[in-house]
Amino acid sequence: MFEHLPKEVKVVEVGPRDGLQNEAQQVPTAEKLELIQALGQTGLKHIEITSFVSPKWIPQMADAADVARSVKLPAGVHTSALVPNLKGLESARDAGMKEIAVFMSATESHSKKNINKSIDEAVATLSDVASQAHKDGMRVRGYLSVVFACPYEGKTNPQEVVRLSNRLLEFCDELSLGDTIGAATPLDVQKMLKLITSDKDKRKIALHFHDTRGTALANVVAGLEAGITIFDGSIGGMGGCPYAPGAAGNLATEDLVYMLSDMGVDTGVNLDKLVDCGELAQKIVKRKLPGRYLQACLSSRTKDQAKQAKAEVAHDGASAES
Amino acid sequence: MFEHLPKEVKVVEVGPRDGLQNEAQQVPTAEKLELIQALGQTGLKHIEITSFVSPKWIPQMADAADVARSVKLPAGVHTSALVPNLKGLESARDAGMKEIAVFMSATESHSKKNINKSIDEAVATLSDVASQAHKDGMRVRGYLSVVFACPYEGKTNPQEVVRLSNRLLEFCDELSLGDTIGAATPLDVQKMLKLITSDKDKRKIALHFHDTRGTALANVVAGLEAGITIFDGSIGGMGGCPYAPGAAGNLATEDLVYMLSDMGVDTGVNLDKLVDCGELAQKIVKRKLPGRYLQACLSSRTKDQAKQAKAEVAHDGASAES
Repeated sequence: MFEHLPKEVKVVEVGPRDGLQNEAQQVPTAEKLELIQALGQTGLKHIEITSFVSPKWIPQMADAADVARSVKLPAGVHTSALVPNLKGLESARDAGMKEIAVFMSATESHSKKNINKSIDEAVATLSDVASQAHKDGMRVRGYLSVVFACPYEGKTNPQEVVRLSNRLLEFCDELSLGDTIGAATPLDVQKMLKLITSDKDKRKIALHFHDTRGTALANVVAGLEAGITIFDGSIGGMGGCPYAPGAAGNLATEDLVYMLSDMGVDTGVNLDKLVDCGELAQKIVKRKLPGRYLQACLSSRTKDQAKQAKAEVAHDGASAES
Repeated sequence: MFEHLPKEVKVVEVGPRDGLQNEAQQVPTAEKLELIQALGQTGLKHIEITSFVSPKWIPQMADAADVARSVKLPAGVHTSALVPNLKGLESARDAGMKEIAVFMSATESHSKKNINKSIDEAVATLSDVASQAHKDGMRVRGYLSVVFACPYEGKTNPQEVVRLSNRLLEFCDELSLGDTIGAATPLDVQKMLKLITSDKDKRKIALHFHDTRGTALANVVAGLEAGITIFDGSIGGMGGCPYAPGAAGNLATEDLVYMLSDMGVDTGVNLDKLVDCGELAQKIVKRKLPGRYLQACLSSRTKDQAKQAKAEVAHDGASAES
């Protein structure tokens, strides 16, 4: 293990889209812009900023065009936006987006429930959208969800995931495989990725883990071992789990960056600045976010401030920690 | 990776001791007994139930003898208790304990702060206690804390940890290596365990991870890969982090058991019953515990109950999860 750790990995921040979309809280456009722009100062080079979807379904993203037009980021920070169809693509393009993300499910039941389309219908739509996006000179990221387990069908068939991945990689520049309900464990990850034998394909594959059962970073390890070099994260773990409100959802970007950096894998991201963004995200969604590293830092800061205020020297006493 | 996964591992539940000891809440003896006895029904075979320490330092454990004498567990469930010195050992023995746990730190600064002894002094005390315990026919577990990082000294020298481990294994039947501040990442775990070359020693070594930065299960993976077959967990992740109040501490037993079971590694533990214990633990400490699997289950249960009450059919809508 760890004989071929990559020197660097690409981290894709999905918080402003995947995170805010799944928060109950409706966030004002100005606050979204503040968060995205703060994320743009951390060293993150890829941020999914919004979603051009029907406000009827996802009112949280009704200001997509505003966000896309108004956001100001340093050169070299790439933004993308989720689009469900040609109409969304058109809106994204009109708002100046250079990269879109398209999405579908790896199981029929989830596909029907989520977008009311069969898998074949979804592939056809995505192919059309991607084809038009490429004509418009845009980059296309694909999302395939419930790749390890489905809330309706249980464990997903890895062969089917690989078949769909191959199909999507015909027209997507990058493909993010999502453990939507956060049920995967490292052996699942290893088994599936073994079926993807093309190194060229592996370089285009991102892993999108949820920490619903605490396994997200363990799964990242299995991904690294299998040669994956792109990982998604959401600031503070923002987003929750759509199937268990109150449970943790998206892997927190800080947890991901902490582990990778400590293992000598460069992400280009400044962890302290990321924690500041996590603090800002908490303020925006008005709740404590589940990211572990974030909470550890914020607690230490509070403790340090308390200490400083009292001008006391730390003394942990005979607390016998283990 | 995963070519030599063990068929089964030993899970040591430390919640009633390490967990409750680090909770602010003072828990009535009857509630402790209820929790320990519920844990004894899950299939867990090893439970650290209390600590025979000075109530001056740790008032949470003042009822150690009561707990030890009153607890009723099925045959085959082993209990242990932490003892800091010969006086503690005597009390534990008098209360009928058959296994004790002794503890020390892997860094001088932590040792001084935690037990006001140098490392050499601590080794001498532990050796005396273990020797007497063995004479009394008791089993001895050792804890070595801050083995990956120390809150005062930063990263711990792995060579020093291995030197101390070898010394402790001369008189301990089992040795738990603790990532007390939850800073380790899998590469740290791999590097340290590579230095322990004796298979005989490896079979006696337990890993005790904290999930303070979300890396606990990733570290378990590195431990499994290195041939470790004993892991500590605390129900619900009870215990917190002594250095960052409010942050996650001990690895939650449910998260550990979930991942291992899903990977085909037998723990002998019933996960549903463990979740019931986590719910009970939350009631006892009067706070939401940080365990990921626990929160996912409890959220789903709440959601299911709400659904049932409304006699509604689930419909997740066009929520476009990824």
